[in-house]
Amino acid sequence: MKPIASTPQPPYYAVIFASLRSGTDEGYADTAAQMMALASEQPGFLGVESVREEGGAGITVSYWKDKKAIREWKNHAAHQQAQRFGKEKWYRSYKIRVSKVMKDYGI
Amino acid sequence: MKPIASTPQPPYYAVIFASLRSGTDEGYADTAAQMMALASEQPGFLGVESVREEGGAGITVSYWKDKKAIREWKNHAAHQQAQRFGKEKWYRSYKIRVSKVMKDYGI
Repeated sequence: MKPIASTPQPPYYAVIFASLRSGTDEGYADTAAQMMALASEQPGFLGVESVREEGGAGITVSYWKDKKAIREWKNHAAHQQAQRFGKEKWYRSYKIRVSKVMKDYGI
Repeated sequence: MKPIASTPQPPYYAVIFASLRSGTDEGYADTAAQMMALASEQPGFLGVESVREEGGAGITVSYWKDKKAIREWKNHAAHQQAQRFGKEKWYRSYKIRVSKVMKDYGI
């Protein structure tokens, strides 16, 4: 995965997922990789950026064409199962923020 | 810094800063710490989350009350100087996205 996503001209949507891992690794790495691959196949997926410090804090930002695409990915069966494990086992805490990107720039 | 920011009820604004560091460290850590401290003193600042993998990719998301607060921080003199060094020395590439947070949830 490239560290900086190539997204189209705004407006589009960003889901900001900030998390703190628990001490439980069971199944985490495999599921995280699967969810990344599966998300990127969803209709309306535009890109993703993800950074995690060893065993600690992480931020993943996924980009989407519209709110419908975000809702459908949230409700995807395999993703729902991963969300349950995430809540029960893998994360000490997390926060998800759904936002609309109005402008972007960079080098 | 806590890994997950305590932000008020939406709506509010998020500035998503995804970056890839260059090999040049000169002054980087000090300036990064100064900018984090200075940002948190600005009017309208609501919180920040920041994760960086060793020498590589990083994501910092700062949260703001309104677009005016974002604009004023962008134009702050010390921050402008840091932005110049960032562009010239510290980052291989980066992308900044300004977005409006419509909802949030978590555990």
